Amino acid sequence: MTIRTTPPHGTPPPSPPLPPLAGGSGAADALRPLLDTVLDALTTGAAARGGPLPAGGPDAVTARVRAALGDVLPAHGHGDHEALRTLVHVLAAGAADPADPLCAAHLHGPPLAVAAAADLAASALNPSLDSWDQAPAASAIEALVTRALAAELYGTPHPQGPHPDATRPDAPHPHAPHPDALVTTGGTEANQLALLLARERHRAAGPLTVLHGANAHHSVPRAAWLLGLPAAIEIPTPTGTLHPADLDAALTLARRGRPGPVPLLVTATAGTTDAGLIDPLDALADVCARHGADLHVDAAYGGTLALSPRHRPLLSGLDRARSITLDLHKLGWQPVAAGLLAVPDSALLAPLAHQADYLNATDDTEAGLPDLLGRSLRTTRRPDVLKIAVTLRALGRDGLARLIDGTCAAAQQLARLIDAHPGFELHAPPTISTVLFRPVPTDDAALAATRRTLLQGGRAVLGRATADGRLWLKATLLNPHTTTGDLATLLTLLEGSTHR
Amino acid sequence: MTIRTTPPHGTPPPSPPLPPLAGGSGAADALRPLLDTVLDALTTGAAARGGPLPAGGPDAVTARVRAALGDVLPAHGHGDHEALRTLVHVLAAGAADPADPLCAAHLHGPPLAVAAAADLAASALNPSLDSWDQAPAASAIEALVTRALAAELYGTPHPQGPHPDATRPDAPHPHAPHPDALVTTGGTEANQLALLLARERHRAAGPLTVLHGANAHHSVPRAAWLLGLPAAIEIPTPTGTLHPADLDAALTLARRGRPGPVPLLVTATAGTTDAGLIDPLDALADVCARHGADLHVDAAYGGTLALSPRHRPLLSGLDRARSITLDLHKLGWQPVAAGLLAVPDSALLAPLAHQADYLNATDDTEAGLPDLLGRSLRTTRRPDVLKIAVTLRALGRDGLARLIDGTCAAAQQLARLIDAHPGFELHAPPTISTVLFRPVPTDDAALAATRRTLLQGGRAVLGRATADGRLWLKATLLNPHTTTGDLATLLTLLEGSTHR
Repeated sequence: MTIRTTPPHGTPPPSPPLPPLAGGSGAADALRPLLDTVLDALTTGAAARGGPLPAGGPDAVTARVRAALGDVLPAHGHGDHEALRTLVHVLAAGAADPADPLCAAHLHGPPLAVAAAADLAASALNPSLDSWDQAPAASAIEALVTRALAAELYGTPHPQGPHPDATRPDAPHPHAPHPDALVTTGGTEANQLALLLARERHRAAGPLTVLHGANAHHSVPRAAWLLGLPAAIEIPTPTGTLHPADLDAALTLARRGRPGPVPLLVTATAGTTDAGLIDPLDALADVCARHGADLHVDAAYGGTLALSPRHRPLLSGLDRARSITLDLHKLGWQPVAAGLLAVPDSALLAPLAHQADYLNATDDTEAGLPDLLGRSLRTTRRPDVLKIAVTLRALGRDGLARLIDGTCAAAQQLARLIDAHPGFELHAPPTISTVLFRPVPTDDAALAATRRTLLQGGRAVLGRATADGRLWLKATLLNPHTTTGDLATLLTLLEGSTHR
Repeated sequence: MTIRTTPPHGTPPPSPPLPPLAGGSGAADALRPLLDTVLDALTTGAAARGGPLPAGGPDAVTARVRAALGDVLPAHGHGDHEALRTLVHVLAAGAADPADPLCAAHLHGPPLAVAAAADLAASALNPSLDSWDQAPAASAIEALVTRALAAELYGTPHPQGPHPDATRPDAPHPHAPHPDALVTTGGTEANQLALLLARERHRAAGPLTVLHGANAHHSVPRAAWLLGLPAAIEIPTPTGTLHPADLDAALTLARRGRPGPVPLLVTATAGTTDAGLIDPLDALADVCARHGADLHVDAAYGGTLALSPRHRPLLSGLDRARSITLDLHKLGWQPVAAGLLAVPDSALLAPLAHQADYLNATDDTEAGLPDLLGRSLRTTRRPDVLKIAVTLRALGRDGLARLIDGTCAAAQQLARLIDAHPGFELHAPPTISTVLFRPVPTDDAALAATRRTLLQGGRAVLGRATADGRLWLKATLLNPHTTTGDLATLLTLLEGSTHR
């Protein structure tokens, strides 16, 4: 119950104007001053931080955030500008900024300015990709971009014969396999979808057995759990990649005592989280073919190498996968989220078909309104494809290849610097852009403490990984602006912070 | 293999500068001109559209998008500004803009300018909420905001006795239930999580049976399928809401012949998709308690009524739910995505606990680095909480209540206009902000055609729903700027477009 109080004399004061919307005809005028405030707060926040991440560790950062926010939902509003200034400043002051070359722990990439700017348009217009009448152009952009990217991974389809619909000659040819991709929130959701599609494809033959290397992303066994499948079978990967002979043995064991076709899905990895290694995809595909197992490749990290003529050969065999995970928020310089699950033919997506009358009633679909609900497990869905489309157009094939090649070259350079330095041990030359190394001498506990000291001091963000039974520091280079000087700084910093 | 060609005479031309990043110290300077281009393209695109959605229907929109894009991945880039101008213009020209009062079909809300501006900071800094060292401040903001919102739904916890840790008196009290919420991509993911938590809670007692009204969101039975559960049991809801006696009968049937505790989850709805109705939550909670069934409430649409003193009583009984779905991209004016799953105590989230050494190694967690992996099924995760935090602070409790109350009042006003108009039949006075109505005379096929005619002409976006065995037009009002004049325009437009 709201009690409206009117002053005893005179008329009530006029209500303040309603807060402006991000869409409609006045959107630009409403957004412009607010964006200025955001840009200013990004600048003041970065200056207050003064390094790749805030100093002081979790308790100090939480205390600063708590002090800045005060009451999360105050009785009366502070106004648009004060709220933006306060929260964006505190976010930036407390960020681990992936655009800082000393922030190199994770597959956490620095977005391109052009991609972040494009993302604003998605937020402002707020198309939702669950029905055509919420996203007319956005759904068309998504269809074109996902097909183009899937064709990069699987090759362009070769139509057989002239197109039977002469009025739509550039529509997908009905007699050719038609590579397609779903947009996801990331590799984790893409892997979930890959397992779900396999589960449904083999439903009649019994429960699906999922096999993966110990080097696979944690989301693979987690997806099996989520989907109610038997626990996934983990195959040891002592060398960091999945060995075809080990897969062969595991598949033989999984089929033992089960006559007839056994539903099997093998997930291989192109770009492991720990070391950036690529499983031998062609040889693994051969093994899968011999056993009648489906192959899924988690190329969340390594998949964009397909866009670089120099690095594409590393992915030989990728196109033999039933499905491919790809994250353009890793080696694709997009803001999160920009995940994809690609398949060699859109018919493989049929298990996701789903109906809800308010979104895709049969008579509407028959009357020509596109049915979008089968393109995701989500319903409401933001057009993450927009920033991808803008980036592809802005940079072009050669511009993207330049960023990919430059980033991989920076990792090679770091490896050379480490190898030449008496105070460090290099694990191995990098395959993509991940470099594992250790100070010498050190032990696992001291190495973990070194990493935390750098974090606590706000000086550098490095990751950790176990390889050959020992713990290593992990530098995941994703920033194409990183210079040799930055890499030397990183090593100097580390020399001064090492626990022995 | 790249072959580098050097001009025969002289030095090679210098490489163009690398495209700028959205983070780092030069971010504001890099972003500002690009944002100007985005704002200009939003303006030119909206002008080209000239209405709530583009004219011509799907084929025309797709043709325009295809023509504008040409080659999705050109050999050479078009540059940042050209790409933004082209794609943002075509997106805006082909948008169904929820900020237009005649765009009122779906739970597809117009975002506030302040929320869209805040979202830019999330895209630019790109924190990822899967480990503290990718999101130091963002993870602290998320913790504060999710607890505050959960406390709005469940009530503030009442600590029992003094806090045992005198150094952290404002940390959650260990002896009080501590409402908490997970940030999701929307109601669909929140409902999936609710079913998953129930599945795991009851794992030892056998497979979970999910029961829901026919009025429930389609994502509820789809989640049961996703999670490998038995098919969900649908209870008819001829009046539009789930009747307690019908639930009682369904639970009795589900338990028949199964002695001992039976794992049961009932999902009720606060704000149905079709009619915006609210199930009788208190009475349903009583029935669930009698049968030992858990209650989940999908309040994706209606949940924010809790923030309005005037409307909060409609949600009586909500706090008896084991979990609550809430979408702030519906009646909360956020850009997609802004979903939540709230629980009365964070201990209920334990089934999501998950470990991946590179993100939450035991020694790191013991050394004080927060463990974030158990707060989502995603791994990489964008801080959708930032725009929510900014909006709560900018508007405050009274500012949000004003928007909620104003939007509900607009729906009441539309219902009055329809009721007073001889050419239309009102289904029922709205509970939240959804109005079902029909032109008279009409039939179902003509009504569906009327809706498609408005879409095809780019004149209005209305939804459809079946109630009492007939098809109705659905106006879902979510725009607080909608005036009585806009509503009158909508009816006038409809009069001139009705198929009879």
